[in-house]
Amino acid sequence: MTAPSDKALVPFVSVDNMMRLVHHIGVEQMITQIAAQIETDFKRWESFDKTPRIPAHSPHGVIELMPTSDGEAYGFKYVNGHPKNTSEGLQTVTAFGLLADVYTGYPTLLTEMTMLTALRTAATSALVGSYLAPKNATTMAMIGNGAQSEFQCLAFKAMCGVDTVRLYDVDQNATAKCVANLQNKGLTVVACKTPEDAIEGAQIITTCTADKKNATILTDNMVGPGVHINAIGGDCPGKTELHRDILLRSGIFVEYPEQTRIEGEIQALEADHPVTEMWQVMIGQATGRTDDRQITLFDSVGFAIEDFSALRYIKNAIEGTEYSESLDMLADPDDPRDLFGMLMRAQ
Amino acid sequence: MTAPSDKALVPFVSVDNMMRLVHHIGVEQMITQIAAQIETDFKRWESFDKTPRIPAHSPHGVIELMPTSDGEAYGFKYVNGHPKNTSEGLQTVTAFGLLADVYTGYPTLLTEMTMLTALRTAATSALVGSYLAPKNATTMAMIGNGAQSEFQCLAFKAMCGVDTVRLYDVDQNATAKCVANLQNKGLTVVACKTPEDAIEGAQIITTCTADKKNATILTDNMVGPGVHINAIGGDCPGKTELHRDILLRSGIFVEYPEQTRIEGEIQALEADHPVTEMWQVMIGQATGRTDDRQITLFDSVGFAIEDFSALRYIKNAIEGTEYSESLDMLADPDDPRDLFGMLMRAQ
Repeated sequence: MTAPSDKALVPFVSVDNMMRLVHHIGVEQMITQIAAQIETDFKRWESFDKTPRIPAHSPHGVIELMPTSDGEAYGFKYVNGHPKNTSEGLQTVTAFGLLADVYTGYPTLLTEMTMLTALRTAATSALVGSYLAPKNATTMAMIGNGAQSEFQCLAFKAMCGVDTVRLYDVDQNATAKCVANLQNKGLTVVACKTPEDAIEGAQIITTCTADKKNATILTDNMVGPGVHINAIGGDCPGKTELHRDILLRSGIFVEYPEQTRIEGEIQALEADHPVTEMWQVMIGQATGRTDDRQITLFDSVGFAIEDFSALRYIKNAIEGTEYSESLDMLADPDDPRDLFGMLMRAQ
Repeated sequence: MTAPSDKALVPFVSVDNMMRLVHHIGVEQMITQIAAQIETDFKRWESFDKTPRIPAHSPHGVIELMPTSDGEAYGFKYVNGHPKNTSEGLQTVTAFGLLADVYTGYPTLLTEMTMLTALRTAATSALVGSYLAPKNATTMAMIGNGAQSEFQCLAFKAMCGVDTVRLYDVDQNATAKCVANLQNKGLTVVACKTPEDAIEGAQIITTCTADKKNATILTDNMVGPGVHINAIGGDCPGKTELHRDILLRSGIFVEYPEQTRIEGEIQALEADHPVTEMWQVMIGQATGRTDDRQITLFDSVGFAIEDFSALRYIKNAIEGTEYSESLDMLADPDDPRDLFGMLMRAQ
């Protein structure tokens, strides 16, 4: 058996290696660095091919492909969303992703993205928070204490000056888990028994719940002036978290309107309700927060460019390290027309 | 470091293992078995979610995602098409694919598909040939002697009674390679200097060239009555192989009209030119060949269901064998909400 050629080998980052890489770099540092990459890519928004993700819905959940390209690199993520999985001991969301060279079409990176999606989602939230949250915000309410919650808390600590998080979940065990995980991380952590308690004194409210239905995590009277709402959990048709009245008195900021109108909180609004695209805020083409009393709402659904940024970040980060292995994934005969000969010689 | 749970591990078939599997089963046997799976799935056509593939075009080539689902399993293929690659020592087409469980969203198989695509394309061609080719066909002209050619020849031998193949390529080296690879495979192999020479006495004409342009491999006067044309190479917008006049006097058979009208030979015809869907022929809802003098044309572009069939075939074929390895691709903490805890415990 001839060894496969270099071109046939695709660097692969397993879950194990991703976790090693995170610890090598540091959680907060890595989130901050991914956020910087996302910011760079958002600022060149118009250089990307963009399309709403391609979903395959079933009664059990959704499987999605999220491709994008900047003309030089091509990336996509496979991700599922199965809220019922948790009750069966499985992850609601699992993901992997791929980067390829547009010039040759050859893949250049395959990586787990369950862990990486948690990191890039937190990075995106805190990046947007750094533009929109009120000045000197120090307290964040974290409503929904599932798999994404600790990453969100650390991201806002690292990038937005948050020093106190107030946790609430319908399941107290989830809150207890989050409290335990955030010990000795430099945050004051307060477990709360009600959402009302959690938002007390919070300048930032993050909602991240996973039911596949229109729920009302926040009602209108709970949200005071000047607050920044980071709404993560409403991310597919029929799945929202906020009461419509909150949307109506908020400045609404989105990633990619074409996708957010299908999947985000704003599916509850008219199709022409004004929203502001974050990339335009970042390059100064649109206004972020207008005043101290404005409620700013980041209606986040997650967009392919964020995964692209994360994939490119990982591709660079693993270079010269031992945090990847080589996957014999592409048949690459010496004579490209001689695929059959390659097969016969392998006998 | 805790070992990843079973659910986090995805069976992976490398190129090396795919080649071992092919030799374990036998090339012709495997093509025949994949064809049987494709036929089974074509016969339940209406149970599949179907969508034209999602392409990312560039001046250099195309990268495509081809998803489909039958409601129980979900599959997709990543495939590129870069005709200019050959001149740079790379494959025109490389591919890999994934199968997932719709109920959980968890991937259940990752596999190379460069080799597998060659096998499933040949299987599809010969399966369709077994329905449409004239009775007692024994000679096939093989025009275009690149990476797909030997697979096509063996598929038509195994499934359609072909005992003689007449080879032609603009590049004589490609023909010489194909001749050499088909020695001692039970076929009479004739190298031809012109397309006219190649089609002499052939009841089946397979065209499989790869230029990304509208070429005319076959002109109208070359195609006599009763012939079956298996047109493989015209498979993206602006890329065709046959003169329009041939199409006008052929019975045209396709996989999925919505995709073929964009990518196939019939992009040269009116959008409402009648075509017959092969799945309807297979279940007896539509007529195949009408008479001995009809020219039948299979305008093949490759469709996601064929990859789905091939993926399911491989998933079954590797069971209980050593032809796969386990890939640590999915983060799967004991408590699904405790992704962060899993990360911390890995420190």
